[in-house]
Formats: sequence, structure tokens, C-alpha cells
Amino acid sequence: MSTYDETTLARVALTWLAEPGTRSVWKLAAELGPAAALDLLLDGGAPEQGLRDSVAARGQAGAARAIATEALKRADRLGARVVVPGDDEWPGTVEQLRHLRLPAPRRRVDVETAPPLCFWVRGPWPLAETLERSVAVVGARAATPYGLHVATELGYGLADREWTVVSGGAFGIDAAAHRGALSAGGRTVAVLACGVDRPYPMGNTALFDRIADVGLLVSEWPPGAEPLRPRFLIRNRVIAAGTRGTVLVEAAARSGATQTTRRALALHRPTMVVPGPVTSAMSVGAHELLRDEPDARLVTGLAQVLEEVGRIGELAPVPRGPDRPVDLLDDDARALVEAMPRRGTVDVDDLAARAGLAVRTVLRKMSLLEELALVVRREDGYALAAAAYRPHVPR
Amino acid sequence: MSTYDETTLARVALTWLAEPGTRSVWKLAAELGPAAALDLLLDGGAPEQGLRDSVAARGQAGAARAIATEALKRADRLGARVVVPGDDEWPGTVEQLRHLRLPAPRRRVDVETAPPLCFWVRGPWPLAETLERSVAVVGARAATPYGLHVATELGYGLADREWTVVSGGAFGIDAAAHRGALSAGGRTVAVLACGVDRPYPMGNTALFDRIADVGLLVSEWPPGAEPLRPRFLIRNRVIAAGTRGTVLVEAAARSGATQTTRRALALHRPTMVVPGPVTSAMSVGAHELLRDEPDARLVTGLAQVLEEVGRIGELAPVPRGPDRPVDLLDDDARALVEAMPRRGTVDVDDLAARAGLAVRTVLRKMSLLEELALVVRREDGYALAAAAYRPHVPR
Repeated sequence: MSTYDETTLARVALTWLAEPGTRSVWKLAAELGPAAALDLLLDGGAPEQGLRDSVAARGQAGAARAIATEALKRADRLGARVVVPGDDEWPGTVEQLRHLRLPAPRRRVDVETAPPLCFWVRGPWPLAETLERSVAVVGARAATPYGLHVATELGYGLADREWTVVSGGAFGIDAAAHRGALSAGGRTVAVLACGVDRPYPMGNTALFDRIADVGLLVSEWPPGAEPLRPRFLIRNRVIAAGTRGTVLVEAAARSGATQTTRRALALHRPTMVVPGPVTSAMSVGAHELLRDEPDARLVTGLAQVLEEVGRIGELAPVPRGPDRPVDLLDDDARALVEAMPRRGTVDVDDLAARAGLAVRTVLRKMSLLEELALVVRREDGYALAAAAYRPHVPR
Repeated sequence: MSTYDETTLARVALTWLAEPGTRSVWKLAAELGPAAALDLLLDGGAPEQGLRDSVAARGQAGAARAIATEALKRADRLGARVVVPGDDEWPGTVEQLRHLRLPAPRRRVDVETAPPLCFWVRGPWPLAETLERSVAVVGARAATPYGLHVATELGYGLADREWTVVSGGAFGIDAAAHRGALSAGGRTVAVLACGVDRPYPMGNTALFDRIADVGLLVSEWPPGAEPLRPRFLIRNRVIAAGTRGTVLVEAAARSGATQTTRRALALHRPTMVVPGPVTSAMSVGAHELLRDEPDARLVTGLAQVLEEVGRIGELAPVPRGPDRPVDLLDDDARALVEAMPRRGTVDVDDLAARAGLAVRTVLRKMSLLEELALVVRREDGYALAAAAYRPHVPR
């Protein structure tokens, strides 16, 4: 087997002792280092009674380091690997979970949203690079044909434009998004709430096998871990934090998928919602989000998703002619377009500061940009016009 | 025939000389009085060349006052009446059109949005009272079964709760909304772009007859007037201005119905949009509005429409128990709830001013209201909680 250092072993053991996301465990690991944190917990030194109890209970089941060693061996046998902070593969974006605070958290899972301590990964791609340009497509298990159609199209379209699709492993929207991506020959990532060797549900086994071949299966839980119910909700924070943005396709009221979406909102990631018929119970959650959350953006298809997650200049794979006005700009003008906020207005002084240009230059270039209809002047400053960032793709 | 005074005759004649909504004509009538304005126009004294030309062209067709007298006689024969400012029946809300300025108007119809000079009315109800509690339901002619279902349900539900339904006379969403209201035994108003004696389209003749019996047919154009194309767009400003709010059910991109909705937005009236499948061309206009207009509110059904157009204490017809917390408040507390803005926050000083209470009283009552979960405290002031105004109706 590959050799793993003491730190990695400790991270694996900590994840076994307490569910991923537990803030106090993550803090101890960050402050003392994983190995010392593990020793402290094993010595009954956890800072909270609840955690001391659960560590003691787990301790009955076996020695933490031995169990971690066993898990690492098992992973090795099935061709999985463990990825920890500091590895090239570690996706830095999930570290932003340390700042995640959900409004009015009522359940344990809404409080214990610390970054992961490790990931188990199966599949041929480096995890961090694969998530670099990724969009989460999430939604209901009991999806309607409408939702399945939309999720498949989105999965296909994203993969076709070289974006990675990320979702869970459930029936319905999750599976449709993966299948869409696979049919475009693109990368897709299933983030699981159980071991990567026993993906759940069984009915998706063929799909999981295919994803392990050409995409990635990812989990915070070690091989063999069962898909306990709370784990799906714990897992959702990773889908929100590991991607550039999240699209909700169909969801019943207060479903797990809306929960992922609320995490994406709390992380200030582009959060997109596909509406549906108001007569469909499977769009109630989507419409609730659009009504309640001013930052949730209604999207009707791929082009609008790309508008939200793409940045200027990042849309190269999209075929387009030389007629995109932004291509014709000189460096200063282009810098100004790039410095404009995606929404809202900015005044000239701020803009000069953001773009690093003289106010005089900004004023001259902004009139030009206004003439080209790339920016619009409003009472309280300048705003980006849609033409400045809209990719030329069919809607 | 009934006798009409010189002013009414002049208003009718002015509407014949220039299409309703023409700002310069409305201004002349407001400044000089309708009779003097008519004389000025007939003497070739219109302030714009275009208007002079069109007055001259219409003048070829007959003497304006004689034609107006003829129209009034014709209306009398068919049991229609003319309603003008100053009449009890005149709906004052349409006067707000004098302030309507659409963003980036590109067409004549987006500029010439002055208030009506007169209405022709057929039906048993006083016009102003009927529009007092009214909601416009507008949408596509080529509606889908989904849209027809939603419009019929909304029409039924509004009428059932004693709201007047207002729409045009087209096939599709318009007709479905009227039929829904009629089936609830409620009032419904068709605002037409032609004479009330020749409603268009012919295929809706039975529907128009029924509306004339138990609702109202309303038009700015005299009996006999043809439904010329631009008139539908001219008419839309009246649907937006004459109602408490507008609901868009289905609309293709840039359709007439989205145009009505944009007028409602510009008038700062509650403007509501029903989403639909993103795969439906008939919801493209609806989704465009929801994406482009922050003030357009997504609604999924009757309860949410009533939330937008209703005011506290105005929901009496809704059956509810004694458990609505707002019913238990003393006068000061109730005054505070009623003085709160429907959206956004207000600070204590403003609120004291709005409610006419001492700051000391406001502070005391607000803690109580906060405890009752009727208001919430935010960083920048107090906001109304949903419970304070939500009617107890099934969703």
C-alpha cells in the first residue's frame, strides 16, 4: 500500500470519531495539528460534553488509529485515494466553509459546517483542478420529466463547454445531470454521503461505475461507510463550497436540495434556480427560494448559468465571431470592463481604484464604453451592460 | 337621449381627433378646458406639426362635434354611457398616468401615455367602485393549457374573494381570467381597444355579452371604433393604471402583456409574474421580466397575489379564526403595524412620524411586536414579518 503520514492518518481517524463538519474538531485540528487533536480527543479532552460522549461511544467500537489504517488499506485495494489539505489535489475553495454562517440555524447540521478534514476520491482526475471550473446541479429525487429534461440538458451543455458537473448520487435530478455530462463526454463529480466503494443508491451502480471511470466519486466518509440520513445534509455543504455556483432544478418545499442552495447563498456563490409550473409540487421549493432570497437568480437555461459563473475572458470555448465588442478594446478599456461589478453600479473614483487607472483616463474610456453599449450610465454611477459579458451562445 | 354637456362632447371629440394618450392633447385639455382645447386644435393651433397634420386629416372625415354627438347617440341606443373626470364613476387612479415615464421609451406608444379623456362603459356597475378592489390578469393569446388553467384559477379565486378581475378581450389568458371570475359569480372588466358595441375578437362574442350583463365592458374609443393594432398597446396603460396590481400569467418574449406589466412597474403598482416551464416559449416573457425587473414579484397562486395587493384589515372576506396575532393588538400597536413599509426596513424616528406616535411609545410597542413575531429587528431598523399581513387562506 501507499504510505500515509501520521497527519493524514489522524485526519481520517478524526473523521471517524466525529462526523465531518463538527466545528470544534476542525478547530482543534487547525490549532494543534490533527495528530495532537486526535490524542486530545482520545484522552477525553474534547471541549464539549456531547463530543466527549460521542468520542467515547465510537471508542467502544475500536481503536481510532487502527480503524483509520484499515480504511486506508481498504481504499488502496479498491483504487481510491485520500486527499488532505496541503496536497496538490486539495480544493482550496472548501476552506471557505470556515466562514459559513447560516441565517437562523435550527439544526445541528446547520451549525456544524466546518471544512472537511479529508476527501476520499475514486477516478482519474485531480480533484482540485476538476472542481476549478465546476457547477453544481442539484434537485429532487422524485423529479418530474420536465426537471429531468432540464437537468440533462444543463449537464450536457456544461460538460460540452468544458465545465465540470457536480451533484450527489441520488435518483432524479442528480443522476440526470451526471448522465447529461457523461453523454457530452465531459467530467462529472458525484459527492457521496457514504464510502466511495459502496455508492448509494444501488440502482445507480452502473452510473457510479461509469463516473469512477471518467469522472470522480468523492466522499468525506471512509470506504465502507454507510449512507446514514444526516450525512446527506452534512455532505451538501461540500457541493455548495466546492463549486463555482449552484443551480437548483426542481425541489419540493424545504428539501435537501434547497438546503444546498441556501449554503451556496450563504457562501456568496452564484446561486441559480430554474422555475417550473406553479402547479407542480416539485417546483415549490424552487419558487420559495426565488421569492425569499433576493440573491437567488432565476435562470432558464445554459446561457444564463454561464453568465452567472463565467468571468470575462473565460468563455473562450464558446464559438463566436470577431464581433464581440469587448474583443476590440484597448488594454485600459478592457481593464475597466473587467473591474466593473457584475451587478449594481460603481462610481468613477471607485472604478479608478479598482482598475488602477487615473480618474481622467477612466472618464475618457467610460464615454467610449458607453458609446459601445458595454456600460450604461445610471444616476449613481456606471453599470455593466449585458453585452459586455454575455457569451454568444444559443439560448 | 341623455344630455351631455359641452365639456363631455369636447372630450369625446378630442379622443376622435387624436388617439387617447397623446400628451399634448391631454395637457391642452387640462390647461384650457376640453372645449377650448378642441377649438384650438380645430383652428390648426396644435403645438406640434404631427398633431396638426393628424387633426387636419381627421377633419377631412367630418366635423368633430357632429361626430361626437353621433357617437353619444349611438352609445345611448345600445345602453352604453360615457364617463368623464368629475363623474362619480371616474376612476381617479388612471390620473396617475400623468406621471408615467417609461425607461428608455422607443415607440410613440411608450411616450404618449397620458390619462384618458373619457371612458365608454357598458354594464351594470359604477366604474370607479368596480375598479377600487381590482387586479389585472394579463397574458398571451396563444396561451398553453397550463397558462389557461392558472389564469382561470386566479380569476375564480380573485372573484371569490370579492376582487374585480380586469383584463383585455383577447383569446387565451384574457378570456380564461374573465371566465374564471364569471364562474365564481364575481365582477370582471374587459378593457377594449375598440367600441364597446363591437368587441373584438368575434369568437369571444358570447363572453362579451355575458360580461356586459354582469361585469363591465370599457373602452376609450367610441362605439363603432375599430380595433386597430396600435390601440391594444395604447389601451394597456389603462389596465395597468386602473387596477391595484397586475399579474402576468404567460407571455412570449416582448409581447403586449409584458408591455402592460412594464407600465404597472413604472406606476409602482404591485407587479406579479407567474413562472412556468423554461421549456415553454409562452413563459419566456415572464422569465425575462423576473430576471430584469427587481420589483416584479414571482407569485405561484392566489394567496401570494392577495399578499401583494391587499392591505392589512382589507382581507375581511377571508375566513379566519381569532388566532391572527394582529387582531389582538391595541390601537397604538396596530397603528405601528399599519405604518410599517411592506418591504424593507424603517427606523424608529421615521416610524414614529408615520404612525403619529411618540418615539418612546414606538420603542415600547416595537419590543412587544417583536415578541409577537410581527416585526423583526434588522441592523438598519425594523421590518414587517410575514405573519403580520399574511391572510389565512389556503395556498
